[in-house]
Amino acid sequence: MSDLFQHSRRVTYADCTLGNHVYYSRYLDFLEEARGEFLRHLGASFLRWQEQDVIFPVLEVHLRYRAAARYDDVIGVAVSVARLDRIRVAFAYRVTRADGHLLLEGETQHVCTSLAEKPRRIPEEMAALLSPHVSPEAV
Amino acid sequence: MSDLFQHSRRVTYADCTLGNHVYYSRYLDFLEEARGEFLRHLGASFLRWQEQDVIFPVLEVHLRYRAAARYDDVIGVAVSVARLDRIRVAFAYRVTRADGHLLLEGETQHVCTSLAEKPRRIPEEMAALLSPHVSPEAV
Amino acid sequence: MSDLFQHSRRVTYADCTLGNHVYYSRYLDFLEEARGEFLRHLGASFLRWQEQDVIFPVLEVHLRYRAAARYDDVIGVAVSVARLDRIRVAFAYRVTRADGHLLLEGETQHVCTSLAEKPRRIPEEMAALLSPHVSPEAV
Amino acid sequence: MSDLFQHSRRVTYADCTLGNHVYYSRYLDFLEEARGEFLRHLGASFLRWQEQDVIFPVLEVHLRYRAAARYDDVIGVAVSVARLDRIRVAFAYRVTRADGHLLLEGETQHVCTSLAEKPRRIPEEMAALLSPHVSPEAV
Repeated sequence: MSDLFQHSRRVTYADCTLGNHVYYSRYLDFLEEARGEFLRHLGASFLRWQEQDVIFPVLEVHLRYRAAARYDDVIGVAVSVARLDRIRVAFAYRVTRADGHLLLEGETQHVCTSLAEKPRRIPEEMAALLSPHVSPEAV
Repeated sequence: MSDLFQHSRRVTYADCTLGNHVYYSRYLDFLEEARGEFLRHLGASFLRWQEQDVIFPVLEVHLRYRAAARYDDVIGVAVSVARLDRIRVAFAYRVTRADGHLLLEGETQHVCTSLAEKPRRIPEEMAALLSPHVSPEAV
Repeated sequence: MSDLFQHSRRVTYADCTLGNHVYYSRYLDFLEEARGEFLRHLGASFLRWQEQDVIFPVLEVHLRYRAAARYDDVIGVAVSVARLDRIRVAFAYRVTRADGHLLLEGETQHVCTSLAEKPRRIPEEMAALLSPHVSPEAV
Repeated sequence: MSDLFQHSRRVTYADCTLGNHVYYSRYLDFLEEARGEFLRHLGASFLRWQEQDVIFPVLEVHLRYRAAARYDDVIGVAVSVARLDRIRVAFAYRVTRADGHLLLEGETQHVCTSLAEKPRRIPEEMAALLSPHVSPEAV
């Protein structure tokens, strides 16, 4: 895990629901944020692709909740590339508390499309940035 | 108050935070929903205006929180038109629990613009729909 | 599908993101709302169970996005019970547009716990309410 | 402005709605996050007060939207103390884009209560931390 990209954030009241735990949909917001920072870290943000008529709508989401994050916890979201083909990419995530305790494992699958949502091939530059990070076993 | 348009909804876990009360930003989501239903009720939804290159970005928001809404409460949002001029409209809101208890009073001020966010005059048809409902004292 | 419980709602600006489609995490909010109405329809709301020290934290979520919902669409969320055992229950969902077009298929798995998040047996009354609705093939 | 505490964050898809601008309620989430970091910076987080039976429910919110924040913008939220008395505190906010462009001015008023929502005096330690930062003209 030590080489994986990780993005951290602190849990706010906005993220929580009754019983002092993060509401179950909020993790998808955290994954989006971490995925965005991962792409930026690789060298080309989603915004840059969007400006080139390339977006990545979600096809599928799979989340396994392992423990609850609480208000004011600092959580880390590790991101890796689970799969990559000509038009699809899947990211894997591992959300942990600052003390290393596992909170959530997840995967999101995306298809490459134009802004008009027509499927298109993942740009070569992007595939080249992602492919060194394909690590199906990593997360 | 009896003649005011009112939209009801039930509070979900998604709306709540610690301590079993609705998170303070969520009321703005409720107001948007009620405002949309009010326009539909008047005879022309925001979608129809949007399709005619007319949108209503928010300029100002003022909210006074009177009591907390809790999980599973049914709340009603009464909407009226507080002010209307050639390019601006303000809506007033009164959020109550099913038992009539006051939860929140609010006002949102909007400017009429094109989709490109250029100010423009409120369409005559819309002004005609709204003006019978101007009741600065109502809420 | 005709016998399944269905809950409808209208898509708001709060639900949408760039490109006029519902943001991917918002569907989990819709599923929670529909699940809550389903339980109420069966005769015992989540609130009533909560008041008896019984809650249902999510263990796992699986979503397949089939088409985008747009601003002002009316969407229906059909809910059924996919599996039920002594301490776990899984709900299946099918989100459709008013014209019947499929938008999302999903499943959420829950464990029965006390408010202190200790696993406990699903109350017999609740199991009796749910078991006639177990239909693994329904959604 | 140069001495004010400022918290930065990047705008995600989750924050945005149609037309590529931040949805109007999301700013209240940003203000909560910045307010929390401000308190931490002063030396005592909201969590620490909460653990001592001291919370700060919102009484009133006032927001003036000056310009739209867009996807992937980095925004800064400057926080100051607008007013402070024995049981109430008001924070003022100024949200700007990285280039300094003003996006939003806001104020939130809070009352000090117990977890059971009974009004109580602001703890002396907290008043001592806040009072050097009272600057009604700052924002």
